[in-house]
Amino acid sequence: MDWNITEINQLTPPDIDRQGNKLLMGNGYIGYRGTLEEFNKEQKTATIVSGLYDKVGDQWREPVNLPNGCFIEVTYKGEPLHALKSKVIAHSQSVDLYSAIHMRETTFETSDGSCITLRSRRFASLSLRQLICMEYSITSDHDCDVDIRTGIDSDVWDINGPHLRKTETCVQDDIISVCAITHENAVPIAVSEVVLLPLECENEAINSSFRTFHSVRIHRTFTFHKFISHVTGNEEINPLESSRKLCKEAASIGFEELLKEHTALWSQRWDTCDIQIEGDEQAQQALRFSLYHLLSIVPTHTDHASIPSRGMSGQMYKGAIFWDTEIFILPFLLHNFPSLARNLLLYRYHTLDGARRKAHEYGYRGAFFAWESQDTGDDACTLFNVTDVFTNRPMRTYFRDKQVHISADIVYAFWQYFSLTGDVSIWKDGGAEVVFECARFFLSYVYFNPDKQRYEILDVTGPDEYHERVHNNAYTNRMVAHTFEVCQHVAAYLCHNEPQVFAELVQGLDFESDLDLITEIAKRLYRPDSNPTNGLIPQFDKYFTLENLPLKTLIERKLHPHEYFGGGSGLATTTQIIKQADVVLMLYLFSEHYSRVTKAINWKYYEPRTEHGSSLSACSYSLIAAQIGKVDWAYKYFMKTATIDLTGVGKQYVGTLYIGGTHPAGNGGAWMAAVFGLCGIHCVDKTISVKPHLPGHWKKVILPFTVHGQKLRITLTQQDVTIELDSTLETPLSVSVGDNVFPLFTGESSFFLESKSQTVEE
Amino acid sequence: MDWNITEINQLTPPDIDRQGNKLLMGNGYIGYRGTLEEFNKEQKTATIVSGLYDKVGDQWREPVNLPNGCFIEVTYKGEPLHALKSKVIAHSQSVDLYSAIHMRETTFETSDGSCITLRSRRFASLSLRQLICMEYSITSDHDCDVDIRTGIDSDVWDINGPHLRKTETCVQDDIISVCAITHENAVPIAVSEVVLLPLECENEAINSSFRTFHSVRIHRTFTFHKFISHVTGNEEINPLESSRKLCKEAASIGFEELLKEHTALWSQRWDTCDIQIEGDEQAQQALRFSLYHLLSIVPTHTDHASIPSRGMSGQMYKGAIFWDTEIFILPFLLHNFPSLARNLLLYRYHTLDGARRKAHEYGYRGAFFAWESQDTGDDACTLFNVTDVFTNRPMRTYFRDKQVHISADIVYAFWQYFSLTGDVSIWKDGGAEVVFECARFFLSYVYFNPDKQRYEILDVTGPDEYHERVHNNAYTNRMVAHTFEVCQHVAAYLCHNEPQVFAELVQGLDFESDLDLITEIAKRLYRPDSNPTNGLIPQFDKYFTLENLPLKTLIERKLHPHEYFGGGSGLATTTQIIKQADVVLMLYLFSEHYSRVTKAINWKYYEPRTEHGSSLSACSYSLIAAQIGKVDWAYKYFMKTATIDLTGVGKQYVGTLYIGGTHPAGNGGAWMAAVFGLCGIHCVDKTISVKPHLPGHWKKVILPFTVHGQKLRITLTQQDVTIELDSTLETPLSVSVGDNVFPLFTGESSFFLESKSQTVEE
Repeated sequence: MDWNITEINQLTPPDIDRQGNKLLMGNGYIGYRGTLEEFNKEQKTATIVSGLYDKVGDQWREPVNLPNGCFIEVTYKGEPLHALKSKVIAHSQSVDLYSAIHMRETTFETSDGSCITLRSRRFASLSLRQLICMEYSITSDHDCDVDIRTGIDSDVWDINGPHLRKTETCVQDDIISVCAITHENAVPIAVSEVVLLPLECENEAINSSFRTFHSVRIHRTFTFHKFISHVTGNEEINPLESSRKLCKEAASIGFEELLKEHTALWSQRWDTCDIQIEGDEQAQQALRFSLYHLLSIVPTHTDHASIPSRGMSGQMYKGAIFWDTEIFILPFLLHNFPSLARNLLLYRYHTLDGARRKAHEYGYRGAFFAWESQDTGDDACTLFNVTDVFTNRPMRTYFRDKQVHISADIVYAFWQYFSLTGDVSIWKDGGAEVVFECARFFLSYVYFNPDKQRYEILDVTGPDEYHERVHNNAYTNRMVAHTFEVCQHVAAYLCHNEPQVFAELVQGLDFESDLDLITEIAKRLYRPDSNPTNGLIPQFDKYFTLENLPLKTLIERKLHPHEYFGGGSGLATTTQIIKQADVVLMLYLFSEHYSRVTKAINWKYYEPRTEHGSSLSACSYSLIAAQIGKVDWAYKYFMKTATIDLTGVGKQYVGTLYIGGTHPAGNGGAWMAAVFGLCGIHCVDKTISVKPHLPGHWKKVILPFTVHGQKLRITLTQQDVTIELDSTLETPLSVSVGDNVFPLFTGESSFFLESKSQTVEE
Repeated sequence: MDWNITEINQLTPPDIDRQGNKLLMGNGYIGYRGTLEEFNKEQKTATIVSGLYDKVGDQWREPVNLPNGCFIEVTYKGEPLHALKSKVIAHSQSVDLYSAIHMRETTFETSDGSCITLRSRRFASLSLRQLICMEYSITSDHDCDVDIRTGIDSDVWDINGPHLRKTETCVQDDIISVCAITHENAVPIAVSEVVLLPLECENEAINSSFRTFHSVRIHRTFTFHKFISHVTGNEEINPLESSRKLCKEAASIGFEELLKEHTALWSQRWDTCDIQIEGDEQAQQALRFSLYHLLSIVPTHTDHASIPSRGMSGQMYKGAIFWDTEIFILPFLLHNFPSLARNLLLYRYHTLDGARRKAHEYGYRGAFFAWESQDTGDDACTLFNVTDVFTNRPMRTYFRDKQVHISADIVYAFWQYFSLTGDVSIWKDGGAEVVFECARFFLSYVYFNPDKQRYEILDVTGPDEYHERVHNNAYTNRMVAHTFEVCQHVAAYLCHNEPQVFAELVQGLDFESDLDLITEIAKRLYRPDSNPTNGLIPQFDKYFTLENLPLKTLIERKLHPHEYFGGGSGLATTTQIIKQADVVLMLYLFSEHYSRVTKAINWKYYEPRTEHGSSLSACSYSLIAAQIGKVDWAYKYFMKTATIDLTGVGKQYVGTLYIGGTHPAGNGGAWMAAVFGLCGIHCVDKTISVKPHLPGHWKKVILPFTVHGQKLRITLTQQDVTIELDSTLETPLSVSVGDNVFPLFTGESSFFLESKSQTVEE
């Protein structure tokens, strides 16, 4: 398969926005939008660095967009060659997923009839993470002179900016630098660049942070390189000095060598995680594309940052980290790059104080994690998150206040990590404290119903945000029950294996009596379950008393195309129409606890009532569809998830506010839907079961899968399953395929699949 | 003082609507709007009978408007004399409050220049409650002939009708009758009328239910009488026969004798309850007017009906009974006509099964009384009670679901009745069952907070309907605590004094273990109290975190003059602006439990934040204002309450829906504000304390006050208080005036008031 994602002659403003996301490049520290070198803030160029946020006045706190060092503009006879302003004969822009290189090639016809082609290749270096490397070439159909203007554009796109002040430019040793500090915390930043020309240019001018090489002679093709370094005070004491140093280092190494290092590292990544699908080019491409995006934004350099819901594609959604990371992104990392999964979990530990502050603010104890988390863990989510289209007034929403499941989602992720990697150190390194504080939060949140003699969880918003402030949301209650269970497990484990650590922790947190109470509450916590008569699980108390109508009818009731379905009086709030998977997500997360019949009944009930107004929805429906043998639906929702950023068809604007961007949870969901869903791999502790539900046209799937430190290679066809393990184990993994259960010590084992799984009829 | 309320030359449509309410006449069985005899449904004529409701299709269930038997039209030379269509020289319409007689006098100038005056007097007989009696006279400036058309107009005004079907007319023995049956339950009704002319009219025609006397000779003045009887299947097996019989009886008794009986009975009523205020004609009139309205609508003939929130002024608010009755109307009756108070309480007992059904519907046990109660006790309140002005869509409101305080309000009323009358029979006659079932409802509604080790009441709407679904509403929690206390008291009383009754009741209700649990819960029920630092009581959890702004600013934010402040996303919902007294009402209802300082602090805080969007609000603010010595405010809010139906300035329409009508709770609130507030009478069991806060211009107030069966006469001046008791007691009442506390056995005692009460400064 071709690893290239290419866009040809796509130059309208919506194309530019879309490609900015789709063709993004990144290395987990820097994210750079897929824009052209001659573009500026009008075209939403953006250089986002991980973990750097700023707030100006009363505006939303959001990531800082650094000065744009990738800027290059070529002028021919006073005529700038600009993809949007000049006559373009041909244009293509692409990303090589395998090597994570962004490329563009644009051929212009100039006023005098000349034909000039601009090409660039650039990458966010995986070996030197603060560095963007670029190769730029100019090809002409005749020998001619051009002016090349390159530099650092400080006039950047901001949603709630400007975030940089005291901006200064300096030039030293042919290195241009822009320094500034952020508004809120005065964090210093520096962007520097060095340009390597193949020849001496005698006619050169520097104006502020731009440098122009005049009358550069083009004989067929002229190629040069530049290196841009990005350093912030979060990493270095003197960002200017560090950034200059890095430019020098890059120049001394050179483009080709840096490219080689970068490509080699990306190649290793693909060796680790690539999934090969034979028989479905589209699925193959969509899945690789999804993994490319995840790999581009996952922080490898720190455990103080995580993956924002719009990745590193800009300041959209405040650059905030949602539950998306723990529930939809983590599994891919867990089974391919466990140490990166660990980083993401420790980010939550490092923001625990913010979660404690939030709990305290609302009158609770323990840790109530931010719905929209940034660097400090304080909640960036506002109380008025939607604008009413009828009155143009801000609308009170309860995302921040009531989506308490976030704390349980985080505990779930910690437990998944532990039980599937066996890495007990996570508890000592902060995990136990997170788990205990989350459990304590729920202890302070639950209520006992004296009449029904059970604990209940009242006044929450579940994953389905169209129904705010409901009671006993099945998902939330189940997740909180799980939090209590994990809390007890971790406490028991530490008490037994690390008594000293446990004693200190319990004492430090004054947790002893709370732990007793948690044990008590856990026994009697209400977990809404399937109705014995019809098998349905109510999404929350009284859900089934709401108006039951087709989604289509609800949509027809809209008076305004952009009216919000939820909030205080949205159209969906009094109906059974839900925004996204809620009960069905719970069925997936606790797959082993629910029968196929229960899954089938509830999938069938909730699926037509789901608007899928969230990118988190389709993958959940795909996963359960696969489990109940609805392979066509599983495939449909897998493809929907996997192509979310390929098609870029999602909503881009609310009014004038840009909300587009990449969808890492969709990317991670694609991996889940492929591996856990269609390939049917399910893992509990050291037990791996494989029940494939391959679409009929899939000939073969080969996938790597790491569990408990062991790298498996699993090959599935329509007929059989082969599992390979290179290493040799003393304690085997337990593998089950169909009815076969066997211990896997080493080597390769193949199993013939008896028959295709049947669709479950409820 | 003149007991007449008169309107002169008020004939615009808004005047007609207003007078229809203001000049209403009634006897607790019939309510007849203050319209003119020649009017029809266009002018909202209405004959409402107590306790008869009907529902057509999916429309709102509402009272039945009976055929209008008061219709009379006079024609002179082919020219109808109609107040709205003819040339009117002078017109007045009035009610004599003392005798409860409606009067009109209209002088017409006819086309030929003649001057003809029509006069009528009519009353809803207090001795024969199904009867309306009318005297009608025609005076001409010259001898002439007129046609008089009289009859029963079946084409009545309905909001959600028509409610009558199979309408039939019959004439027998000069009695015209209209019979019909209701839609929903086929209840038969009959309206009959007989006309007594002073002479034989030979030229008479009957057409359907109308009878025309042609060419009646007018020599100066011609007077005749008619009697209209109204009977329904709720009282009589054969309404037609009964109504005809009643007409005959009335005719044989005659108008003057019936008037005499009627007036004598009303005179007795006023002897019992009239309050004389010297020095303030306006207050005197407003208060008498308020009592007139209460007396006109209080059911005297049954304990199966109560007082709807718009009295008997039409079908507005579905003719439903709200908490208004128990909290704002009952005190007047309790201290003047205890047996009528008892009737209203037993109405709740008779609707207990409806309350049980409602509790069950919502998944609770016990009795959750209807927010809008009709004859069966099933809730007439809809889930969508308001129309959104921006989308014209029905808006989900939580009046029905969440105003759980209704069940506690009813228990409060039962306890007030018992503790102030000493009538223990109320418990055996249904009161105990109501109390136990309400307590049981709250037992099933409360939750235990394991972290705070207390019971809480979550997800309710308090009196302030602008903030729906709040937690720990101070009013609700306090009222529920009171319900539990009353439950324990009643149980203890019965157990001790009526062990057999108690045993049967507890067994029949399977109440034993619930009673134990109630005792347990009552001990630890959270009652939001004043903050030790600033003395403020939070209306509900987190109330003080809401936006704090002046009411004026909030009003300025309106985009539409009629937009609703509450509901899912109303302007007030995210602010501290409240619709009506909530904390302040609680302070009044539990006056003896809160200090004057607490009252002063909270009154001062909540008063400017209250929109008084309910007629229940002003009286509460008046009551506490008096207690804290803010006599000017107490007087202002007393007058606002007392004049509510005199001025008729309230909102009359929502869109095309008429919502005007009388305000019995305002009428009752006026009595409370006068007696409990300005006169400062406070009664707990057999202890009466008097702390007057008379406005400076009030010279003297004389008021009757019944407590524990003893009729007191209390006279207050600026200087002293005199209390008279005609009977002689063995066990005295305890009376306190200022610092004087003494036992009252009999006779008259006077007390000099030391000094005027001081305003409490918080």
